[in-house]
Amino acid sequence: MDAVDVVRAYWEAANERRWDDFAALLAEDVLYEVPQSRERVRGRAAYLRFNQDGFPGLWRLEIVEVVGTGRRAASWIDFTNADGTNQPGLCFFELDDAGRIARITDFWPDPYEPPSERAHLVERF
Amino acid sequence: MDAVDVVRAYWEAANERRWDDFAALLAEDVLYEVPQSRERVRGRAAYLRFNQDGFPGLWRLEIVEVVGTGRRAASWIDFTNADGTNQPGLCFFELDDAGRIARITDFWPDPYEPPSERAHLVERF
Repeated sequence: MDAVDVVRAYWEAANERRWDDFAALLAEDVLYEVPQSRERVRGRAAYLRFNQDGFPGLWRLEIVEVVGTGRRAASWIDFTNADGTNQPGLCFFELDDAGRIARITDFWPDPYEPPSERAHLVERF
Repeated sequence: MDAVDVVRAYWEAANERRWDDFAALLAEDVLYEVPQSRERVRGRAAYLRFNQDGFPGLWRLEIVEVVGTGRRAASWIDFTNADGTNQPGLCFFELDDAGRIARITDFWPDPYEPPSERAHLVERF
């Protein structure tokens, strides 16, 4: 399995709450970071707990795209919160020698109003 | 050149304002979208204008990572605005048969304060 397969298996396990399968994809010393909020989680046990307890309610996700090769991949998911609102989630992944996920960098972009200075250069959808 | 090489060349050309080189990497019918702001730009000429005129001032960028294979890639850049502030920029790319960039989906995640409910599950950096 290369990184694209591992990342697809990771998201499918998360979406189906198959936490044993999810944990088996992680390196013992996995490092998870969110640059936007400066949050960090270190290690498989802590990261499993973060995923199980950090996002209460009936969220679900769909994979939009996973790209990569070898040990590196990036994913774009469509995350639906428990209240039905949607948000894109973007992650960069790195695997270790054993093919386990060793590093995850996670981004959650929010909607914004575009600057009016460039309104003449774009259309809206 | 696969998508990773094309995307690296794209960012290097943008950073150095080599607009002829930049345009040569784009498909005639390139489609650019920003899901957060619902902005869209269609076609090489319009997209070149958007890049030349849409971001005034002395911005610069550094490539943090480009991952992908074949016709698809994702990039993470560190963008420094004219005022010296930094922001991550994340893009997903798709090439056409000729190896030109046919589709770009662009994300600009902003900083946020993490939810207090999960503060016990993370550290901060």
